[in-house]
Parts: sequence; C-alpha cells; structure tokens
Amino acid sequence: MNQHPDFLINEVNEPQDIKSMNLDQLKELAQEMRQLVLERDSAVGGHVGPNLGVMELTIAFHYVFDSPHDKVIWDVSHQSYAHKMLTGRKLGFLDPDHYEDVSGYTDPSESPHDFFKVGHTSTSIALAVGMAQARDLVNPDSHENVVAVIGDGSLSGGLAFEGLNNAAKLKSNLIILVNDNQMSIDEDQGGLYRGLKELRDTQGQSANNIFKFMGLDYRYVADGNDLKTMIDVFKEVKNIDHPIVLHVNTQKGKGYQPAIDDQKKYHWRAPFDLQTGESKQSAPKESYSAAVIDELNAQVEAGKPVVAINAAIPGMFDLGRFKAAHADRYFDVGIAEQDSVTTAVAMAAGGARPVLFESSTFLQRAYDQLVHDVALNEYPIVMIVRGGTISSGSATHQGTFDISYISSLPNIEYLAPTNVEEMISMLRWALKQNDTPVVIRQPEHELLHGTPSQDSYATIDYDIAHHGSEVAIMAVGGFWQLGEEVCRQLKEKLNIDATLINPKSVTSIDQRDLHYLQEDHDIVVTIEDGNLSGGFGETIDRYYGPTNMKVLNFGAPREFADNVPLEVLYEWYHLTPEQIVDDIERVVHSAIY
Amino acid sequence: MNQHPDFLINEVNEPQDIKSMNLDQLKELAQEMRQLVLERDSAVGGHVGPNLGVMELTIAFHYVFDSPHDKVIWDVSHQSYAHKMLTGRKLGFLDPDHYEDVSGYTDPSESPHDFFKVGHTSTSIALAVGMAQARDLVNPDSHENVVAVIGDGSLSGGLAFEGLNNAAKLKSNLIILVNDNQMSIDEDQGGLYRGLKELRDTQGQSANNIFKFMGLDYRYVADGNDLKTMIDVFKEVKNIDHPIVLHVNTQKGKGYQPAIDDQKKYHWRAPFDLQTGESKQSAPKESYSAAVIDELNAQVEAGKPVVAINAAIPGMFDLGRFKAAHADRYFDVGIAEQDSVTTAVAMAAGGARPVLFESSTFLQRAYDQLVHDVALNEYPIVMIVRGGTISSGSATHQGTFDISYISSLPNIEYLAPTNVEEMISMLRWALKQNDTPVVIRQPEHELLHGTPSQDSYATIDYDIAHHGSEVAIMAVGGFWQLGEEVCRQLKEKLNIDATLINPKSVTSIDQRDLHYLQEDHDIVVTIEDGNLSGGFGETIDRYYGPTNMKVLNFGAPREFADNVPLEVLYEWYHLTPEQIVDDIERVVHSAIY
Repeated sequence: MNQHPDFLINEVNEPQDIKSMNLDQLKELAQEMRQLVLERDSAVGGHVGPNLGVMELTIAFHYVFDSPHDKVIWDVSHQSYAHKMLTGRKLGFLDPDHYEDVSGYTDPSESPHDFFKVGHTSTSIALAVGMAQARDLVNPDSHENVVAVIGDGSLSGGLAFEGLNNAAKLKSNLIILVNDNQMSIDEDQGGLYRGLKELRDTQGQSANNIFKFMGLDYRYVADGNDLKTMIDVFKEVKNIDHPIVLHVNTQKGKGYQPAIDDQKKYHWRAPFDLQTGESKQSAPKESYSAAVIDELNAQVEAGKPVVAINAAIPGMFDLGRFKAAHADRYFDVGIAEQDSVTTAVAMAAGGARPVLFESSTFLQRAYDQLVHDVALNEYPIVMIVRGGTISSGSATHQGTFDISYISSLPNIEYLAPTNVEEMISMLRWALKQNDTPVVIRQPEHELLHGTPSQDSYATIDYDIAHHGSEVAIMAVGGFWQLGEEVCRQLKEKLNIDATLINPKSVTSIDQRDLHYLQEDHDIVVTIEDGNLSGGFGETIDRYYGPTNMKVLNFGAPREFADNVPLEVLYEWYHLTPEQIVDDIERVVHSAIY
Repeated sequence: MNQHPDFLINEVNEPQDIKSMNLDQLKELAQEMRQLVLERDSAVGGHVGPNLGVMELTIAFHYVFDSPHDKVIWDVSHQSYAHKMLTGRKLGFLDPDHYEDVSGYTDPSESPHDFFKVGHTSTSIALAVGMAQARDLVNPDSHENVVAVIGDGSLSGGLAFEGLNNAAKLKSNLIILVNDNQMSIDEDQGGLYRGLKELRDTQGQSANNIFKFMGLDYRYVADGNDLKTMIDVFKEVKNIDHPIVLHVNTQKGKGYQPAIDDQKKYHWRAPFDLQTGESKQSAPKESYSAAVIDELNAQVEAGKPVVAINAAIPGMFDLGRFKAAHADRYFDVGIAEQDSVTTAVAMAAGGARPVLFESSTFLQRAYDQLVHDVALNEYPIVMIVRGGTISSGSATHQGTFDISYISSLPNIEYLAPTNVEEMISMLRWALKQNDTPVVIRQPEHELLHGTPSQDSYATIDYDIAHHGSEVAIMAVGGFWQLGEEVCRQLKEKLNIDATLINPKSVTSIDQRDLHYLQEDHDIVVTIEDGNLSGGFGETIDRYYGPTNMKVLNFGAPREFADNVPLEVLYEWYHLTPEQIVDDIERVVHSAIY
C-alpha cells in the first residue's frame, strides 16, 4: 500500500510533471524523496549516501532537460533512485509491496529514461561519448543533450580516464557532471583527490586543472545540494556545443545525519532500523573473512612480510581490523582493480607477500592483469575471491564467471576450500611457497568446519570423504553441503552408495583418482557454484571425453539472472538435491539400457 | 658470427663496463646500438622507432644507476633492446645466428636486469609502485631506485592513470620517466596530448600540469636524445626521496631518417631491406581484412550508419583504407581497449552500427566491458577479432584465450568463419540484425574461398561438408584445412569415412545435428586454434557427457608458449594431422575392445 498518498511525488508520472512546479514544491519533492530512499533502504537494503546526495541535481536535471530526448547516464547507477522516482517508478519507493519491483540500478527494461544496465563504476563517460557520437551521426540536428553523472570515487578507475581522454576529442554537446562528494565506497585514494581538493578550495579557479589540461571546458559548482543553483547551471549549459565538465560539490548522505557521520557505513546498507541505525540482521559469530584476517595478523606479528591489498572494498573482507592492527601493511588503491593486481605482482617480485582481496564481479576488471601480469610472471601472489556464487542479486554483479575466467589461465592455482580450516590451510601454504600464484575462492554458504586432508597443495590429492561405487559426486567449495545431501538422497531413494569427493582445486586435477574411479564407477557428477561454460565440470568432461565414463555437470547456465530469489534460481538451474538425484537417475537408467 | 667484432659494445658485458667510458665513447655506443637495432630488425623483424628513440636515455640510466640494485621497468618493453645489449645480451644483436636467442621484450629468465615479462602497455607505473612499496617494507635502507619508463602513447591506457594516482601516495623513491615522442603505435589520441604539448611548448612551465595536479614532483627535459643532458638529469634525481615524473622529449626513430619520416610504418616492422626500406615479404594479393574493409565501405556508401572503432592498431586491420574513404566514420580511441568496447556499446544504443576491431591478446584488457557492457546490455555491436591463434610469437601476446573468455559469456554470439565468403556473410548478418552482439574470429591461416551454407546466423545449422560415419570431425574456423586433412588421412590410413563439420559458432551449438550424430558415430573430434581449457571442445564434451559418445579435443594446453616455431608447437600440442589420426585410432580401438 502507498505509505504516503499525500506526497507531492504522487503527482509525478513523467519528468514533465515537475516542470510546472515552483522552487518550494521542488524542494518539498527533494525532502520527500530523501524520506522514501531511507524508508526503502532500511526495509530492503540499498545504497543510502549516494542517493541522498544527488536529490537536487537529479530534480534540476529533469526540470531543465527533456528526458529521454536528453539523456542522462548514471555512473554505477546506484545513485539513480531519485531519477527512478521522477520517471514513472515512484511506487517502487512509496509502496513496500512494490519495493522489489524496481532494481537498484538503471535498466532499460524498466524505463525509456534508462539507457544501460550499469552496476560497475567508471563507464559513464565512455558511454556518454558513444551516445554523443551516435547522435552526431544518426541525428545531428536533434539538439539532444547527453549528460554523464560520475562520482569522484569512480574517477579513479582507468576507464573513466580513458573516457575523459576521448571526450576531449568531441566537437559537440556533452556534459560530464563530476559529483564530488569527497568519498568513494570507502575513502578516496590517490593523487587525483589532492587536485580535486585544490579545485574545490579555489572555487574552481586553480590554474592546475586536469580537465582543462585535457582540453575540456570546465565549471565549478560550490553547492550541488542547492536546487536553485543546479537549475541555473543546467539552464546555462543546456545545448552547449562542446564537451564541458561540471565539477559539482555535494554532500554524501545529505539530509540524514547518521549517513553524514558515517559515510562508509551508509554507502550501502543491508536492512536497518531507521530510528536506531542498527542492522536488522546480526552479524554471524564466526566468518571466513574473520579467520583470514586472524591468520594475516598472526603472520605479520610473526615477522612475515605480508601485506593486504584491495580496491575500494575493505568492508567486504573485514579489512578494517587488519588496517587497525597494521596500517603500514594495508593498501587500498581505490576503484582501480587493474592497478591492485599489477601492483601486487610487483610487490611479490620485490619480496613482499601480497594478499589481494577481490570480489568475483569486480576482479573481471583486471582480467588482462591476471593473464599478462599474474599468470605470465608467476610471482607468488595470493588472492582471496569473494562473491563467486550464484546469487539473488543484480545481474550487473553476477559472480558466476570467475572459475571460467581464472581456471582457463596457465600457472594459476585456483583453490576452492569447503570449510574454514581448509581455507586457512590453503592460505598458509599459499603464503609459504614461492612457485605459483594462488587464488582462493571463499565459500559464501554457511560456515563449515572440517579437517584438511593435506597441508601442501603443490599437488592436489582429492579428499575422498566417502568411498562408494557406481556414482561419484565431486562437490566444489561452497557446494560441499549440497554434495553431501545429494549423496544422502542417492542412498535413500536409489540405494546408490555414491562416492563423495572434495576436489579442492578447480585448476589442477588428481589424475590418479580420476583414473581409478573408472574401475567401479559409471557416472561422475560435478556440482559447482558458478558458470558451467568454461567451469570446473567441463575440465572433468574433457578428461573423461575419450572414455566410457559418463559425466553430468551441475552449475549455472550461460545467462544473467537479475534479482531472482535463490531458491527459484536453484530450481531453474536444476540445483536442488532432488533435481540432481533425478537427473542422475535418468543417466543411471540409460547406462543400464 | 659476430658482424662487428670491432664495435665498442663488445667490451660491455655488464652495465658497470660503461661507467668508465667518456662521453664520446658513450655516444659511439649509441650509434653502434642504433645500427645493431636496424640490422636485427631488418633481418628478423621487430620494433624499430621505439628502440632508436631511447638509446641515450638507456645508456644514461645504466651509466648513472646501478642495475639491477636500481631497477628500471620498461613499459611494453618493446623499447628494451639497448637495455638488453648493455646487460649481457649484446650477442643477440651482433650475431645473426643469435638474433632469435633474445626476445623482443624484457624477461627475467634472460637476465637479472629484467624483472617482468611485459608486452602489454600501461603496466609499468603500477609495477614500479609495487616494487617501491616492497622495497620500503623488505629493504627500507637499501637506497634502491625504482624507475619506470613509459611512453606517451601508453599513458592513454587507464591502468597507467591508476598507477599515477597511486604513485602519488608514495612517500619514497620513485622515478617515472615519461618518454614523450609524440606518437603512440599510430597517432596519439585524446585530450591528454593537448596538455602534454602545452607542457613541451612551455618547457614544462605551464601551471596546468596533470602530474603536479596529482601531487607528483615534475621536471621537463627538452632533449632526451642528448646523452649529457640525460646523464645530468639522472644524477640529479638519483636517490630522490619521493616520486617524480621526468617528462622527457625524445624523437621516435631517431638516427634513421626513414623511421622518422614514417613513424607509423617503423613502429614495428616485419623483415625489410635496410637500403630500400622495402618489405622482404610481399603482401598477399587478397586478405580477410581487405574483404572486411570492402564490405564496410560498401555499407557506408549504401547509407548505413556503420562506424569502425579500434584501439591504436589500425594497421592490423587495413583500417587506413576505411579512414581514407570515410574519416567521419573512423574512431581510434588510442591505447584504451576498455573505452573502445564501452563506447561501441553506447554507439549501438544510439542507433549507429559500430564495428570494433580488436586483437585477441589486447581485447583481454576489456574483459569486464565484454561482460558488463556488451553481454549484459545486448546492443548489437559487431566485433572482428584478429590474432586468435596458436602462434610462434612472444608469450606476452598469446592469442589463445579469446574463445575461453568470450564463449563463456551470455548473450554474445561468437562466430568462427572458415573462409572469406563465410566471414563476409556473417558480417552482413551481424550488421543487419538487432538482437545480439556478434564477434567474428578472423582466420589467421591461408585465405580460403567457399560458399556459406546459410545467410542468417540467428540459429546455427552446422555445415556438414561430408557425411560419413563412425568418426565426426568438427574443425573450427582457421583449422578447417587441418580438419580436411585429418579426414583424408583417416580414410587413407584407417579406412574410416569420417564426417566433416564446420560448426561456425563457438558459442551456439546445433543440438539437432549433435543429437543425430549419435546414430552412426562413436567418436566426435574437435579441433580448434585456441586454448582447450574453456574452449569450444569442452562445450561439446559437456553436451555428450551423459551419453555414450566419445569426444576427443585438440587445441592448445593451458600454458604459455614463448617464441616457439609453429611446426614445433603443433608437434608439442598433438596438432599435426598424423598425431590427430593416431590419437583417434587409439580411441577407435578402445571403443572396439
């Protein structure tokens, strides 16, 4: 039910509906939308600070420009909530029953006012340049404005710089709004921010100006949270005939004191109590991340040259605790995944023991660095990858590709632990050996305990948790419990005493065990929490290709899933124990006949 | 045999050997090394202009610093020939019998003066920052200088910017030498070069300075080809206690007029006549690239909104001819593969029909853009990929990964034509349809002609060139002729009348054909010019996993090959027709028993 039928926003179905409003009404709108952001985020989770900070500039954009004829492209697009409310999607914020109807990012399938699905940073300028170039070619007399909105934090990603560099070549309309709230996800990192501060401190007057250096027109806006100012600025630059950078100073979290006081915490929040600020879900007592940090702290304290590197997402890995204990060993390179990987390689070359913390979906941004710097050079960096999992989240952040894109590369050992003791055992070995880069896939399911069956992973010996016959289940990493359950049901339903294997690695195979399985097994089943195409299962398929062994693979198909509940996804993907057992049964029968 | 036993360079076994030389001797050394670069490059091919331009700064580095205690990291490292001659590898330039002993890039296995295998651009600053950070941690009192040498062209790659941004955080020794020769591989592209020009024009005095903006110390050197100047500059900055950018103006091709007059042609050259400048190999009469450009020109002339986009490598694709005919439809974004892909997506969204030209090894740099911008957004961009092949070249530029990293992604159709008519047929379809991004893998083998068996590739129907039984050969793209030869030998040696299939796509499979193959075939063989891990073959393995069909995959193993002649590599990889037939024979026999 609409929680606020009295709100002014109810009258806004299209952006044009705000054009007749006066300044006071527009300000009221901003206030309402801030409240709606907080109500929705506190109920279902979402980006808080980024959205609170851009209310005025969003309203001003839609007041001055004519969307979708004029086009705004939101970088990352996690700050597009107000844009969504003003472009026909207000019910997704007014009515809790509809909170889940609207995604947290722009999506052309939601609205003609969105042009791209976007969830990764630093793409908006390159996208805007492309839109402008297409306009100049296809529709040169359209007087269509193209506006990119990019945060200061996103500017540290190399693609943003590549975009700026090419934007400067354009000889037609392009407006790049740099939303400078002096924060990234965590703190801004790097020399760029010294320069931006100088520009803010001089009201944009400093002669040293990276944008002008590149030949871009430039204008500073001291208070981007003042609606009248933003309206005036947009009116002045509308239909400009060349690229301009609007450097707009805003406040992240504007209008909600807790989000201003703790900008990191309120960048994105899981559901929380709006009164107390407390999280609605309590943190688990023990976690894989905490165990990793404990181990790193212990190694530093034992005198090992261990360092921790990450690209702007320390919160995902509990790295605050490492930084607090060993600030000189902690490196956040900002949103710059390429740099994080390449720098880590060099630190290993120089004798340090770097441990990189990466998210599956963002590590994609450093693929060439994985190939050309990590795999080719073989220095013993260690990498922890989180978020490598089929998930109920946005398609923009799908974490199912990492096994495919890492396991196909030479020289990298990609380990998939099934429990916390095994993960720490792998981490210790990775930090002790000098031969190979090691990536460890942190499980994202319920934390399990266990006893590692080896303490060196230079050669992989499969851990055969149960020796059976006929069918062998290879359950990878976080899907270990699923493998156990499949075994249980195979026994119960089909009276098959299946073998259960922890393969530990998605890159190295235990050829001996695979060979001997052929003696008393007809079917090998692989279960992995990731993409089937190029995944672990296909490695096993290839091994058994020329033999009589039948192989069945379970994992994610080659598709994007967008905000689908996990139980539904598992059902779609044939990943419930019942479905897996049914599929095995069919092959067992075909093997008999 | 040493061609120049009288050269001064013969006395140089280690960098320290030049420290006692006087300026005239050092200048003589520069002249000799220029001659040796030209002799070697004209004989076996290599980078010309980049090496001729850095003679003085290389000699000065080794004269002033103490390598390998002090460390120089060459960006791309294609300009490291002089460094190699001065660090014990002169015979690779003096003696034609040893030309092939020394690779064209830095390589730690060649010399302790090299720290990384490097062949892709824009990595050196991030590497140098990592080396410096490791030094500060592991060896803080070592007074070790870390020097990165990066060309102006390489600065357009986002990773270079990420590196600069993080370099500015360093509070210890780091020297970033920007070797500004006013050229990339082709022309420099983008606003950055306006700013660099302003710095050159003002002798580094302009207040607008991107390096200082980021908080980096800065010094301009007007003539980086003057040995005395470079020695003095290096002496002054040696042991500096903070990061500094040396902006050094040099001339690409210095000392060899043809390389100055045509800097693009002499960036890298295949073997050529040193007197006439003529290529030793004549260009083939017809080529896949020429056919593609003919088609694009025709489409533009027919009024289609086709545009061509590339990232600094127009020469690889004959794009000069397209640019000459349709300059307004031609976009070179500089060395910025991420930007090229993201901008192309937006151009497609805006109604243009972008055709992207990418090299397999460099497209790796835009992997996240393939996932997050291309696959997720599904705009109908078209991409031509060259260099996707097992090659005799450097490990740094291995082109065997593209099938793995593209075919595992949703929504992208990756087509592998076997002949030029099929390639153009695929290109026409790709530019006509609106449903899907299409990538086309240009064959790198002998140009073949043929008749396409379909003209829409929305659904893939396998082209069964010959219907046989027992064994089916699926030969992908450039390996079509190999497939034909395997079929011939199977008939001749084993009297097997094998089926021969052109699968056309490495992403979509023809389930109907694969299904019916089971009726009268026992073995399916896949042959692809790329990585087996995550490749096309594994897709077929997975399809037949639960069945009785045996599958054999041929392709490249998960390893880097470094300058190995192709016939040797094929032998290693079991890719000669004889080996493939032998392997098939073994499985045929095992199937009988």
